[in-house]
Amino acid sequence: MKIRRRHPIFVSVVALSSGAFTPQPLNPLMLGFTAETAEQQLQLESRFDDLLRAENLHDWMQLITAEPIYVGSPHNREVADWMVEQFVSWGYEAELAEYRVLFPTPRIRELELLAPTRFTAGLREPTLAEDATSGIEKNRLPPYNAYSADGDVTGELVYVNYGIRADYEELERRGIDVRGKIVIARYGGSWRGIKPKVAYEHGALGVILYSDPRDDGYYHGDVYPEGPFRMDQGVQRGSVLDMPLYPGDPLTPAVGATPDAERLNREEAPTIMKIPVLPISYSDALPFLEALEGPVAPAEWRGALPITYHVGPGPARVRLHVEFDWELTPAYNVIARVRGAEFPDEWVVRGNHRDGWAIGAADPTSGMVALLEEARAIGELMRTGWRPRRTIIYAGWDAEEPALLGSTEWAEHHGRELREKAAIYINTDGSGRGFLRMGGSHTLEPFINQVARDVTDPQTGVSVWERARAARAVRGDEKAKKDALSREDLRISPLGSGSDYTPFLQHLGIASLHLGFGGENRGGSYHSMFDSFDHYTRFGDPGFVYGVALAKTAGRTTLRFANADVLPFLFGSFAESVGRYLEEVIELADEMRDETERENRLIRERMYELAADPTETYHPPEPKESVPYVNFAPVKNALAELERASKAYDQALASRMAGGGLPASRAAELNRVLMSTERLMTRDEGLPRRPWFRHQIYAPGFYTGYGVKTLPGIREAIEERKWDEATEQMERAAEALQRVTRAIDQATKLVGS
Amino acid sequence: MKIRRRHPIFVSVVALSSGAFTPQPLNPLMLGFTAETAEQQLQLESRFDDLLRAENLHDWMQLITAEPIYVGSPHNREVADWMVEQFVSWGYEAELAEYRVLFPTPRIRELELLAPTRFTAGLREPTLAEDATSGIEKNRLPPYNAYSADGDVTGELVYVNYGIRADYEELERRGIDVRGKIVIARYGGSWRGIKPKVAYEHGALGVILYSDPRDDGYYHGDVYPEGPFRMDQGVQRGSVLDMPLYPGDPLTPAVGATPDAERLNREEAPTIMKIPVLPISYSDALPFLEALEGPVAPAEWRGALPITYHVGPGPARVRLHVEFDWELTPAYNVIARVRGAEFPDEWVVRGNHRDGWAIGAADPTSGMVALLEEARAIGELMRTGWRPRRTIIYAGWDAEEPALLGSTEWAEHHGRELREKAAIYINTDGSGRGFLRMGGSHTLEPFINQVARDVTDPQTGVSVWERARAARAVRGDEKAKKDALSREDLRISPLGSGSDYTPFLQHLGIASLHLGFGGENRGGSYHSMFDSFDHYTRFGDPGFVYGVALAKTAGRTTLRFANADVLPFLFGSFAESVGRYLEEVIELADEMRDETERENRLIRERMYELAADPTETYHPPEPKESVPYVNFAPVKNALAELERASKAYDQALASRMAGGGLPASRAAELNRVLMSTERLMTRDEGLPRRPWFRHQIYAPGFYTGYGVKTLPGIREAIEERKWDEATEQMERAAEALQRVTRAIDQATKLVGS
Repeated sequence: MKIRRRHPIFVSVVALSSGAFTPQPLNPLMLGFTAETAEQQLQLESRFDDLLRAENLHDWMQLITAEPIYVGSPHNREVADWMVEQFVSWGYEAELAEYRVLFPTPRIRELELLAPTRFTAGLREPTLAEDATSGIEKNRLPPYNAYSADGDVTGELVYVNYGIRADYEELERRGIDVRGKIVIARYGGSWRGIKPKVAYEHGALGVILYSDPRDDGYYHGDVYPEGPFRMDQGVQRGSVLDMPLYPGDPLTPAVGATPDAERLNREEAPTIMKIPVLPISYSDALPFLEALEGPVAPAEWRGALPITYHVGPGPARVRLHVEFDWELTPAYNVIARVRGAEFPDEWVVRGNHRDGWAIGAADPTSGMVALLEEARAIGELMRTGWRPRRTIIYAGWDAEEPALLGSTEWAEHHGRELREKAAIYINTDGSGRGFLRMGGSHTLEPFINQVARDVTDPQTGVSVWERARAARAVRGDEKAKKDALSREDLRISPLGSGSDYTPFLQHLGIASLHLGFGGENRGGSYHSMFDSFDHYTRFGDPGFVYGVALAKTAGRTTLRFANADVLPFLFGSFAESVGRYLEEVIELADEMRDETERENRLIRERMYELAADPTETYHPPEPKESVPYVNFAPVKNALAELERASKAYDQALASRMAGGGLPASRAAELNRVLMSTERLMTRDEGLPRRPWFRHQIYAPGFYTGYGVKTLPGIREAIEERKWDEATEQMERAAEALQRVTRAIDQATKLVGS
Repeated sequence: MKIRRRHPIFVSVVALSSGAFTPQPLNPLMLGFTAETAEQQLQLESRFDDLLRAENLHDWMQLITAEPIYVGSPHNREVADWMVEQFVSWGYEAELAEYRVLFPTPRIRELELLAPTRFTAGLREPTLAEDATSGIEKNRLPPYNAYSADGDVTGELVYVNYGIRADYEELERRGIDVRGKIVIARYGGSWRGIKPKVAYEHGALGVILYSDPRDDGYYHGDVYPEGPFRMDQGVQRGSVLDMPLYPGDPLTPAVGATPDAERLNREEAPTIMKIPVLPISYSDALPFLEALEGPVAPAEWRGALPITYHVGPGPARVRLHVEFDWELTPAYNVIARVRGAEFPDEWVVRGNHRDGWAIGAADPTSGMVALLEEARAIGELMRTGWRPRRTIIYAGWDAEEPALLGSTEWAEHHGRELREKAAIYINTDGSGRGFLRMGGSHTLEPFINQVARDVTDPQTGVSVWERARAARAVRGDEKAKKDALSREDLRISPLGSGSDYTPFLQHLGIASLHLGFGGENRGGSYHSMFDSFDHYTRFGDPGFVYGVALAKTAGRTTLRFANADVLPFLFGSFAESVGRYLEEVIELADEMRDETERENRLIRERMYELAADPTETYHPPEPKESVPYVNFAPVKNALAELERASKAYDQALASRMAGGGLPASRAAELNRVLMSTERLMTRDEGLPRRPWFRHQIYAPGFYTGYGVKTLPGIREAIEERKWDEATEQMERAAEALQRVTRAIDQATKLVGS
C-alpha cells in the first residue's frame, strides 16, 4: 500500500505543469530495495515510527540543558557519560573517544569608548525571570569569540558593515583605510570568522562584532522574553578560527589530536586569528556607532538602530582588551555502535554535536535528542531480534562549536578506516518547527526525496516533502519556484560548512546528508545564554513534534542505508547538479568579462568621477585586467561522459530492482563500487592553498566561511582572477568526474550483466 | 566652433561600445535651424548665458521665502504683485490672472491614542535657532492634508504600510479587515492622495499619514538642523484630492474657475476625500505604532523606528478629529508675455509654480527664481533690440500645491486658444544640486538632449548631459546602464503628474517638458516648515549654481523654440518609445497570464496553506480568472506605420536643414502641422472613467497618483483585468497613432517637396 503512495503528487504535477516536461520517475520502488525487501523495510520503519516518544525528547533536553555544556565544562562530561550509559542500556557498544584540543576561554574582556564621550561596554547578558537558566553563574562562559588573539589595542573606530571584502572596496571608494584602526562589523553576510580575517588582511588592529537588530533583533519580531527574537543585551558567541583553511584542532591539522599527536606551537597555528575580536550586544554597540562621524554609510550598510549610520573613522576612539587562557582541553565524543549482521565493514555513521556555547537547547540539543530517540527506538527494534545488515555508528560530537573539533579529530584519527568502510554520514544539528531542509551529496538526492515523501508533517498531515515543496513553490526565488512545480525531486543544497559533516564529506569524501527542520522556529537565541529549554519549548518546537519528525526522517535514512540491498545512490541528479554548477561558473566568467569591460570603460571615460558628488571624497576603482576566455572543454567533456554513464546506471538499476534485484555477491561487489564514488570526487592534494579540503565538487568558500562553493577549485580561481589556476583546476575537476564516471560504468556492468 | 563640439562624446561611444550598434546622429546641426541660423542662435544663447546672475536667484529667494506663501496668504499676493512689477520692468506685458478656487484650511486638528495608553499627538513643528523662518507664527498653515473630509472618528488602529492596494491584499491574507477602523500609513510607495482613497474603498473611517525615518528621516542621513534630513517632528503637508480623476478646482472640472463659473456643490465634488486624513511626524507616530499588537508586519513593511512593527488591529484605539474652513480663495497666476515678432500666434509657454505649503524655498522657489532670471536675461536681450520670433509666455502659477489649481484653471479657461497656439509647455518646479532630469514628450527627446549637451555643469565643467549620462551609466538599473552607454540620446522620462505640466500635456495635448536638477540636494524638508532659505542655501544649492544651470537649460529650450525655423520635433524617438511601452504592456499581459496560472495552481493544490505557519491566521487568495490572449495587432500595425513615417520625416528634415532649410511659407505651414501632433495623441472623450485625461500615451496612474502609466487606457485595463476594455482601448490608441502618422506624413511631404 505504502509503495503505491510513494509519489502521491506525481500525477497532478504532470497534469498541471503547463507543457513543462516532467520526467517519469525512474524508481517508483524504494531505492535500493526490491518490491519484496521494500515491503519488509516499510514494516520495520512503521514499527520504528511507533516507538518514537516526544516525551523522551522533552525530558532529555531538560536534563541536558540544566547547565552550560561547552567543551571542558563539568556538565559536558556528565552528559557524555550519561549518554554512554543510555546507549549501552539500549544495546549498543558505546564509549567516549577523547581528544586533547586547544580551546581558549576568556580571562579579560574590556571594551571602552574613549572619545568623544566615554562608555564602557557591559558585555553581560542579563538574568530573566522568564528564563530559568539565564541566571546560572557557575561554569558559565561569557560572550567571546574563540580563537581571537590576545590583545590590548586602542584606535579610531570604523564601521565596516558586514566586514567582508566588498565592504572594504566601498570604504576605499570613500578614501577610508582601516590600517591602525579598530573596526566594528555587524554579524551576517558571511560566517563570522571571515570578518576578523579580512579586517586583519586590511591592517585593522582589532574587531568588534555585534548583532544589529536589522539582522537579529526587534526588526524581525518581539524580543525575548516577550517574543523569540534577540533582546538588546543578547550576544552571539562563536568561533573565529580560520576554518575555511582547516577545521578541527588548530595545533594538529589533518591528524587526530590524540595525547601523543605532534602539535604545532600556538604561534605557528595558521588558523588562529592574529588580532583581538570581541562580540557585543546591540545595546552595547549603540554608543559606539552613534559616536561615529564621517560619510553616511551606504544604504545597504544601515541597520535598524535609530541612528544615522556613519562610517567614521572616528571621532570615536576605542580600547579593546582581551586575553585568554589557552588550554589543551579534553573533548569527549560519544561513539556508539551496533555491528552489522551481514556487512559489518559497511558503516552508516549518524552524528550530531553535543556541546553548546552556553545552555545549548536549540543548538545542538534539539538535534541531539532526536538522534538519541532514534537510537533508542532502534535499540527497541533490536530487542525483538532484528539487526541492521550494516554497522550503524551513532556519534555525539563534542566541541563542534569552537571548530568542529570532536568530529574532525575523530574523522582524522580514523580517516583510513572511514574511507574504506563508511557508506554515508548523516548529520543533524539544531532543528525546530517548520520545513524539512535537506543538504548533501547529490548522489543521494533521489534517495532523500523518497525518505521525505514517507514522513508525515506533524502540523498539516501531508508529507514533509509536500510541505517543503509548498514553501519553495510559494516563497522560493524564481528558479526554486519553477523547480518546485516542475521537477520530480526537490533539489538538495550542496554543503559548505558549519556543522560536523565537513570532515566526513570534504576531507574524507564520504557521501553525506545534513537534515533538519526550521523556518517556523524563528528567533534570536543563537549562541546566547537564552538558547535555553524555556526558549526552545516556547518558540523552537513546542511539544517536540518536529523533533520526532526529525527522528523519523534521519532514522529512516539510517535504517534504509543500513538495510538496502543496493546502496541507494543514483547519479542522474549528481550529473545534472554538476552541469548546473558548471553553467554557473561559465556564466560567472562571462559576467566578469562584461562587467570588467564596462567598468574599465566607466573608469577610462571618467564616468565614476562625474557621477560622484564632488563635495564628498571619492576614489574611482582601478581598471582591472580583461577577463580571458577560459577553456571549459575538459569539464564539459567529462560531464558529457558522466551524464551518459549516470543515465545508463540509473536505468539499469531501476529495471534490475523491478525485476527482483541482484544476487547477493553481485550486490556486495556493487556496493563496494558505489561507496567509492564520493571518494573519487576528492584529491589527496586538496584545493589550492588548503590541502585539507579535498572534495572537488563541494567546499566552504575561502571568503564566505560556511557558504558553499561548488566546483570550488574552478570557481574560486575565477573569482580571484587566477586564470592559470582556473585552467589547472579545470583539469583536476575533469579528472575527478572521469574517475567517478569509470566507477559508474563499472557499477552499471555489475548491475546489468 | 560650438557646432562642431555638439557631440563631443560621440566618437568615443562608437570606438568603445564593444560591438553595440550606435546610430549615426541624424541631426549634427542644431535641430530646427540651418547652419547659418544655428550660428546666430548660439551667439544669442551665449549672450543669454552671460547675463545670468546667481546673486539674483539668491536675493529673490530670500525675498520670496520671508513668509508663508500658500494660496490665499498675504505674502503670496505680495509676491505676485512684485513679480508682475518685475516682468513689466523687464519689458513684458504682465498681469495677474485670478481664479476663485476651493481651498480648505484646518480649524481643528486632534489626534489621540485612547488605549492601551493615552497619548496626544503634538502636531507641531518646532522653532529652531538655526532656521530663521521656523518660528514664524503669523499666517502659518499647520501640518494638514488639504481636501481631507471633516470628521471626528474613533476606532481601532491598523498599520497598512504604504496604504496601496497590494498592502490590503497582504492584510486580507492575515484575515485583517479595516472596516470601521482607523489606518496609519507611511508616506511613500505612491502619491499620498492614493492612500486615503484606497483606505476609504476598503471601509476605513480615517487615515493617519506619517513620515517613517526609513523613507524620510535619520535612516538616510543626519537630520535637520545638523544635516538636511527630516527631523523627528517634521511633517509632510500635502494634498489628498483625487487628482488622478481630475486636478484643479474640485468644483469646476474642465472649466476655468472664473468668478461666474458654474460650480458643483462641495458634497458632489468627486475628487474630495470622503474620510478624514491627517499627516504627522515620526515622533508623533511612534507611540501609535508601538501600541499595536497582532501579526508582525511583513518584512517590506518595516520602517526604521526602533520597534517591532505590528499590524494590529488594536489594542491601540485612536480618535482623529479634523475640521476645515472650506473657502473659495483667490488664486493669482502671474502671466507675462512678449509678443513674437514673426509668429505671434505660436506660443512658447514656460511656467513654474509660485505657491508653497509653508515657506517654500526648494518647492517651488528654487525653480521660480531660475525662471525669473531667465525672463530677466531675455528682457536684457530685448533691450538690445532682439525680439523672439514666437510669443513667449512666462507663468508663475498659484495654488499648485493643493491641486495644480492655478495652472489647471488657466489652461482650462484658455483651452481653446492654447490648443490652437501653444507650441510647447516648458515646466520647472523645485530643483537643486546634482544631475539634469528630463521628462516630457518623446517628440522632444532629441531636442532636449541637444540642449543638455550645450549647458555646462557648474561642478565638473563637462556638459550637464555628460554628467547625467555618467550617473545613469554608474547607478542606473541594467537597462538604463546599457542605454546610457550605447544610445545616442539619453532617454527622457514619460510624464505622469505632480506638477503644472499636467493640464497642458494630458488635458490639452501640448507637447511638454519638465526640467530640473537634483540628486545631490538630498534632504527631508519637503512640504515642511523647514523648506526654508536657511535649509536650501546650506543643502539645496549653495551658491545657486544649479539654479543658474537650470536657467541656462530652460532658457535655451525657450529661446530655441521661440526662434527655430522649423519647430524642433522629431518622431523616431517617439515611435521607439511607444514601441517599448507596447512591449511592456504585452509583457504585462503575458506575465499576468503565467502568474495567474501559477497562483491558481498553488491555490488548487493547497500550497499556500501548506507553506503558511499553522499557528498564524492565513487566508489563501481566491483563484483568478485566466488571462485571455488580447489582440495587440491594432497597435502593432499602427506602430509599424508610425515607425515608417517617423523615419521618413526625421531623415527628410535632416537633409533639408543641412541643405539650407525651407522657404519661410513652407516652414510656417510645416510648423502648424508639427504643433498639431501632440494634440492628435488626445481624444476628447478622454480615458475610461476620467474624461479629463485625454492623452492616449501618457497619464498619471489611477492607483499611483503621480507615477506615469504609458499607453494608459490599455495598461490600466490589463492591470484591472478588464479585457473588453483593453481591446477597446487598443483601438483608441491605434487611432491616435494613426492620426499622428498622417500628420507626420503630411509634414514629410512639406519638408521634402
